[in-house]
Amino acid sequence: MMRTARVAVAVFVLGFSPCLRAQAQTGDDPEARLKGLGLTLPEPAAPVANYVRAVRVGNLVFLAGHGECSSAQTGKVGRDVTLENGYASARRVGLCLLSTLKKEVGDLRKVRRVVKVLGMVNATPEFAEHPKVMNGLSDLMVAVFGERGRHARSAVGMGSLPGNISVEIEMIVEVAD
Amino acid sequence: MMRTARVAVAVFVLGFSPCLRAQAQTGDDPEARLKGLGLTLPEPAAPVANYVRAVRVGNLVFLAGHGECSSAQTGKVGRDVTLENGYASARRVGLCLLSTLKKEVGDLRKVRRVVKVLGMVNATPEFAEHPKVMNGLSDLMVAVFGERGRHARSAVGMGSLPGNISVEIEMIVEVAD
Amino acid sequence: MMRTARVAVAVFVLGFSPCLRAQAQTGDDPEARLKGLGLTLPEPAAPVANYVRAVRVGNLVFLAGHGECSSAQTGKVGRDVTLENGYASARRVGLCLLSTLKKEVGDLRKVRRVVKVLGMVNATPEFAEHPKVMNGLSDLMVAVFGERGRHARSAVGMGSLPGNISVEIEMIVEVAD
Repeated sequence: MMRTARVAVAVFVLGFSPCLRAQAQTGDDPEARLKGLGLTLPEPAAPVANYVRAVRVGNLVFLAGHGECSSAQTGKVGRDVTLENGYASARRVGLCLLSTLKKEVGDLRKVRRVVKVLGMVNATPEFAEHPKVMNGLSDLMVAVFGERGRHARSAVGMGSLPGNISVEIEMIVEVAD
Repeated sequence: MMRTARVAVAVFVLGFSPCLRAQAQTGDDPEARLKGLGLTLPEPAAPVANYVRAVRVGNLVFLAGHGECSSAQTGKVGRDVTLENGYASARRVGLCLLSTLKKEVGDLRKVRRVVKVLGMVNATPEFAEHPKVMNGLSDLMVAVFGERGRHARSAVGMGSLPGNISVEIEMIVEVAD
Repeated sequence: MMRTARVAVAVFVLGFSPCLRAQAQTGDDPEARLKGLGLTLPEPAAPVANYVRAVRVGNLVFLAGHGECSSAQTGKVGRDVTLENGYASARRVGLCLLSTLKKEVGDLRKVRRVVKVLGMVNATPEFAEHPKVMNGLSDLMVAVFGERGRHARSAVGMGSLPGNISVEIEMIVEVAD
């Protein structure tokens, strides 16, 4: 029968780097943490079409579905792309989201909470490890924002994604006035 | 031609149980209603990874994508799983969401409105009855919260879901101060 | 290798009609603009099931996943349905969303901002041009609301959709008191 898997979608435990975990306890400036991780924010792409990368309403910033800011990983995870490369792609998508967020609010120290993440994996119909891919994003957010980086999340499998990219992520963030 | 189906996505009428409908009119305590329906809230799984099951911002609670709290129905609806079992799974996912919600706000009587539901069905490419599956969740919310349980909803088909579960649902809920 | 596509998900530039662009500069009444475009709002379908087409919380209106208000385009884009027909369907879905929105708030002049769009395309696993489909919705919103119509957006590929419709879209809109 099909009722055998013990799956609690929201509680896949993922081996994220202890060094990232440590980072999250030091300092209070998210950009200093990024630097400490050896990471640089990419240039946000210009909003040139009939939509934009972020809209703020009150203290909520709604971020558009982002791929990576530059050359993106493409292909279906579980067939063309390994878990590791999927994780790495989700992490780079996270950097691209942070780049947009910084442009929108001016300073990442204004982030009160990463609220909600919809993590979309371009996967084969049999793929089952979306959470392990999306931890690339989640681990980054916690490394950069500490407890404020912990978010409600869905990590799911899409039938297809624009340009055949492997990962697309949208995010809602609470920011200070 | 392909333009033949008369489909209004948001208005599939589903035969939900008249007894549930009746329940919705009696009493004002959602937990009493649950009891009246013979339902018990499952234990919410502990948030052990880099994300959490719920984040509250002001009066809105954003609930992560949830599967069932314990042994989940797995397999693709329309091939491995019947409509009835899909409906039952969506209903159990609803119980799991309520369990998280109660943990977050302390008392389900604080729920002002179930605002928005994204119901994701693990389905074959040809599957077309997602609303009938997701009514398992929607019927439960109305049975438990009455009119306050009526929500805006999308019921859609994913290419794949974590652990091959059949149903994953995320929800936004408005709560009292 | 798979890392070759230069894809910035949120910045696909789409050739939208210069005449729509012009419209967006004239007048301040969205319904007058619709009329100027030769468009009429369809009748919103009645909310007859256990969910509704829109829920307002404070100044945000959460619109349910909508298909077209009447006979919908069906079939998978990239196989059964051309890009052009997908675009046209997304545009009609937009009209249906506006119809619901008007019913909810009474007057489209109350719209402050189209905040967030989740554009879901029923597509083949290889389909890659979701943004071109979803511009049908985005172009309409900018034509009708001008700058206030520019939104954060995800345009993604679903494995399946209810009734095999080609396009389903949900939307969050900020409205005046």
